[in-house]
Amino acid sequence: MTIYIAVDLGGTHIRAASFRPTETEPLKHHKIKTRSKDESIFERILHLIEEVISSGESLGAIGIAAPGPLNPRTGVILNTPNIPAWDNFPIIEKLNAYFHVPVFLGNDANLAALGEWRYGAGQGHDHLLYLTISTGVGGGIISDRHLLEGKDGLAAELGHVTILAEGPICGCGHRGHLEALSSGTAIARYVKEELKNEKTESSLRSRANRSAKSIAKAAREGDPLALSAYERAGKYLGIGVASFLHIFNPSIVILGGGVSQSEDLLCKPFRKSLEKEIFAPAYLEELTITTAALGDDAGLLGALALVEQKV
Amino acid sequence: MTIYIAVDLGGTHIRAASFRPTETEPLKHHKIKTRSKDESIFERILHLIEEVISSGESLGAIGIAAPGPLNPRTGVILNTPNIPAWDNFPIIEKLNAYFHVPVFLGNDANLAALGEWRYGAGQGHDHLLYLTISTGVGGGIISDRHLLEGKDGLAAELGHVTILAEGPICGCGHRGHLEALSSGTAIARYVKEELKNEKTESSLRSRANRSAKSIAKAAREGDPLALSAYERAGKYLGIGVASFLHIFNPSIVILGGGVSQSEDLLCKPFRKSLEKEIFAPAYLEELTITTAALGDDAGLLGALALVEQKV
Repeated sequence: MTIYIAVDLGGTHIRAASFRPTETEPLKHHKIKTRSKDESIFERILHLIEEVISSGESLGAIGIAAPGPLNPRTGVILNTPNIPAWDNFPIIEKLNAYFHVPVFLGNDANLAALGEWRYGAGQGHDHLLYLTISTGVGGGIISDRHLLEGKDGLAAELGHVTILAEGPICGCGHRGHLEALSSGTAIARYVKEELKNEKTESSLRSRANRSAKSIAKAAREGDPLALSAYERAGKYLGIGVASFLHIFNPSIVILGGGVSQSEDLLCKPFRKSLEKEIFAPAYLEELTITTAALGDDAGLLGALALVEQKV
Repeated sequence: MTIYIAVDLGGTHIRAASFRPTETEPLKHHKIKTRSKDESIFERILHLIEEVISSGESLGAIGIAAPGPLNPRTGVILNTPNIPAWDNFPIIEKLNAYFHVPVFLGNDANLAALGEWRYGAGQGHDHLLYLTISTGVGGGIISDRHLLEGKDGLAAELGHVTILAEGPICGCGHRGHLEALSSGTAIARYVKEELKNEKTESSLRSRANRSAKSIAKAAREGDPLALSAYERAGKYLGIGVASFLHIFNPSIVILGGGVSQSEDLLCKPFRKSLEKEIFAPAYLEELTITTAALGDDAGLLGALALVEQKV
């Protein structure tokens, strides 16, 4: 029996699963830590793939979702902050040399968009905008039933779009990106900055943990600083999404990632800002705004969707 | 002999031309003022089309480029500031009822992108970003050899993307859009604002005409205010284009419109800013940045390209 393997390489975990063609229920599904003292990350990927292949199964193709920037056409992961040892790492060539089957690579956020489109919240939509909001902000676009990749597969870096020129600094070193204003990191940094003002009253002052998650908890308890941090993130998210609607005119916006799970806190300021910033009401007509359906499996199922599309 | 008609409806002029299929050299090419006391704009379009059809020619299809927002799928021009009388004007239906041939409609900036791609500066590129910078800022995208239209054909409104939240007000009423920072209107308004400060020294103070064009003239004569107005526009254009590269990863950027003809003034600050703002060098590798090749005929040839694509 022929099977496909999907792999999702994350900063913390590697997931792999085997599937029968056209099926989305995995035959086997394993998850391990990305790092180990005894093996390189690439060795861990090899062993994980071997683990999800049962005897009698014939491997047909592999799809792999990895953090960008990467080039899906050449199969090279350029330089990903989470895996410093990989600099222009030719993962397709390496996997292909080992398994002798076609290997397909995609940016994890792009493939999560593809996964949501094929199997999740975006089914039936021809024009889809996917945003994942967690430590960073990533994006994926389906335009007229095609995944937007660009010349070298570097498209849809929606977190690295300037919405407040000369604004706060982003993880990438540039200023005013959406990621620098609406990510979990941006929420935590805003609180940290505001607490430097001794007059700012907040229950967060006495807490050691000031992650986006713990700020969400404080906001739900009514802490004004925590509430304003989420309000600010939601406001800029609305400004960013309004721009993306003007650029892509999609029929659905899907929000994924940890921060979007604080939907109650982010949603109201986000929607208010989006409605204020939209350039013509037509962009919001018949527009679905929803949260991701595939959860932690979005990247894995996106890698599967990539294989199904390419094979 | 079958012919195709292309029409470019502008705020000042209407252009129409007839073409043999697969040819881009017009058989006839007419241009009239958009407005007249004696006829409605729609009547002028009808008569202009009839004028470019010679006896013995059989009309095969019509393509029309018009200012947005419009819906190319339904053929309705929603509400265009230049033609207040047209509110949800069903131009495809009306032309079709008169000429009884297929009619295709597109946003003028989108069709200019299509025209440059098929017949102009963008030939051979699969991923193209077109920006027209004049009174306003418009855009068009070719992604993987497809014109980006979105669900209702409202995509690629690249002038109405926020790059400086809470920044200067745009013609559309929203703040901080690229159009509010880098258009000819934005350049003129910046000069007007700066001249309110009585300490600002500028040769423009004594001039009645302070259009972008006359500011360009002053800049070439060394006027510091005029120079700084173009520098500012170029800086924000660089920030905007960097974001568009992160979004689309094209292989070519084509700049059209009147302001881009002041290339000498805009180009240096634009390129400097683009290089500073780019998120990874890969976006600039093998990227062509050039000016439009089709001039005033971009919309007309785009309308022709639309017909050729659809027929």
